[in-house]
Amino acid sequence: MIKEARIVDVEKVAVIGSGNWGTVIARMLGTNVVQQKGFDHEIKMWVYEEMVGERKLTELINEKHENVKYLPGVSIPENVIAVPDLLEAAEGATILVIVIPHQFVNDICGKLKGKVHPKAKAVSLVKGFDTTQSGIRPISHVIKEALKIPVCTLSGANLANEISEEKFSETTIGYKNRQEGELFKRLFETKYFKVGIVDDVLGVELCGALKNVIAIGAGIVDGLKLGDNTKAAIIRIGLLEMKKYIKMFYKGIKDETFFESCGIADVITTCYGGRNRKAAEAFVVTGKSFEQLEKELLNGQKLQGTLTAKEIYSVLQRKGLEKEFPLFTTVYKIVSEGLDPRKIVEDIV
Amino acid sequence: MIKEARIVDVEKVAVIGSGNWGTVIARMLGTNVVQQKGFDHEIKMWVYEEMVGERKLTELINEKHENVKYLPGVSIPENVIAVPDLLEAAEGATILVIVIPHQFVNDICGKLKGKVHPKAKAVSLVKGFDTTQSGIRPISHVIKEALKIPVCTLSGANLANEISEEKFSETTIGYKNRQEGELFKRLFETKYFKVGIVDDVLGVELCGALKNVIAIGAGIVDGLKLGDNTKAAIIRIGLLEMKKYIKMFYKGIKDETFFESCGIADVITTCYGGRNRKAAEAFVVTGKSFEQLEKELLNGQKLQGTLTAKEIYSVLQRKGLEKEFPLFTTVYKIVSEGLDPRKIVEDIV
Repeated sequence: MIKEARIVDVEKVAVIGSGNWGTVIARMLGTNVVQQKGFDHEIKMWVYEEMVGERKLTELINEKHENVKYLPGVSIPENVIAVPDLLEAAEGATILVIVIPHQFVNDICGKLKGKVHPKAKAVSLVKGFDTTQSGIRPISHVIKEALKIPVCTLSGANLANEISEEKFSETTIGYKNRQEGELFKRLFETKYFKVGIVDDVLGVELCGALKNVIAIGAGIVDGLKLGDNTKAAIIRIGLLEMKKYIKMFYKGIKDETFFESCGIADVITTCYGGRNRKAAEAFVVTGKSFEQLEKELLNGQKLQGTLTAKEIYSVLQRKGLEKEFPLFTTVYKIVSEGLDPRKIVEDIV
Repeated sequence: MIKEARIVDVEKVAVIGSGNWGTVIARMLGTNVVQQKGFDHEIKMWVYEEMVGERKLTELINEKHENVKYLPGVSIPENVIAVPDLLEAAEGATILVIVIPHQFVNDICGKLKGKVHPKAKAVSLVKGFDTTQSGIRPISHVIKEALKIPVCTLSGANLANEISEEKFSETTIGYKNRQEGELFKRLFETKYFKVGIVDDVLGVELCGALKNVIAIGAGIVDGLKLGDNTKAAIIRIGLLEMKKYIKMFYKGIKDETFFESCGIADVITTCYGGRNRKAAEAFVVTGKSFEQLEKELLNGQKLQGTLTAKEIYSVLQRKGLEKEFPLFTTVYKIVSEGLDPRKIVEDIV
């Protein structure tokens, strides 16, 4: 009887996505579901099927227990099963961990619509916005509306490769229902991955999107070799604009969210270690276009920061708020309108 | 008549101190008093007299208009006059800019006692605490009690050499009387040195002292090569402990002070570019003592961070608060009690 009751209460996890961050997460969850009580030991990971040489990526992952394409050299527990079919991966899952590039969210949610477990809940690790004709929408809204399930968000100072090396970091989960926040904390937390939870789904998600605009600003300062004082000033001003923007356009945002890992800590990590910073520095130093740098530095992957800068600027412009957000505005104009990078300090004062 | 009125209203500035930071400040003020209205054009800078080769330092400064010992290679305006006699430097000054190592504050204030201009007010750029038998005292309290004059404080993300190169930075001035805050803003602000003012003398000062303990933590993380995520976590936790400590032990502290340059920005600068970070990294990597490293890396100058860590820890220990400040406690134990540096992440979780 007790045994039966336990089976009924067990949560089954599916990871939707298997890029660099998705694979790091699946690896961590694969270990955790075995050690924590209350989780089914098998995790299905949806993999967008592609060929690696002559072999299918899913076959290689399931054979070598390694994502040879997006996280080479790091082993994945055998209880993580790569699945090329989205619906098969999600079938029976009561927890959907969604970790895909933001431009695929509409498509994926469309396919999952009406087909998820009645008790399913999601946690979104997606960065960025959904762009619509009338403006921009948080990804957690898109998921919630499409799948009609509760959605939490996870974001933090989490450069993926460092976590795959099991170096200590913190993260933040935003919840609406505390029970779900606590469930996800149990699912994600390890000795080297410390989870803080806050009653603020949108605040957590939006910090994760907007930080990349600040990182572009930090990279510009690095490219100009302006030094540590200037960089700290840009980060500080960026953090204040991020907070002001989020609180101005969204309801129920908590001040303390900005002091969590998803706030100040992630802004710092992204401004010192992230690829948006790196590309913006190269943009200033080499004079190459971001399109060119995406090819050279990022294997053609799109930079989040330049896109988000544009999306945010279009909102600010429509509302006539450019002067209230001088850093966001200046970053946009430098990366998209040919403004002299040196204006980064002149125009924000 | 108009001319006379202007003379009466003019503020006369003396800079008390001429180390690296003091000289950078005197250089900036020397230019500013000429460009701004309401200031006497001559600034006396008190210099602790010492011999450089066969020559007196004050003579060299006044002849070469350069502090050959503490800021070599950077010219100082001719209206900044080096003076070896403290009372002569302070005579007639209505603004005392105090920028000396904290251990000399009692002595200097003792000598100035009863001898400052009746309209004098001070701005303290001193970092650290005054240690007494019963505990630690903010430096602004020491100055105020000795000289019986109003005291403002200045602190920010201000690595001195970058400011001497006129690279953009921000700073914060804490005032009690807004008029004084605005006066000092006019005195200090330049195109490349942006001043924010807050009604919080102690908050500004204490951030400047406590940040160095966080920087020791950041340097330990760097020495252990734990990466950007861990470092951002340490900075975040440090910032929260700094805020908690200051608000717990001092009255009238404003939350917004921590979002000013003296708060988050200075913490970041110090954790990436400062000498406390550098020495702590070397402490972990080389295993040498801090005394040895002070000789090798800092020409024998004392590190602020290790001393402040000790002072703060003695307060926490006396009050039984070690567990509420795990980062401050762990940093102290690593630098002073031989605790394994790797505990920096284990003991704060």
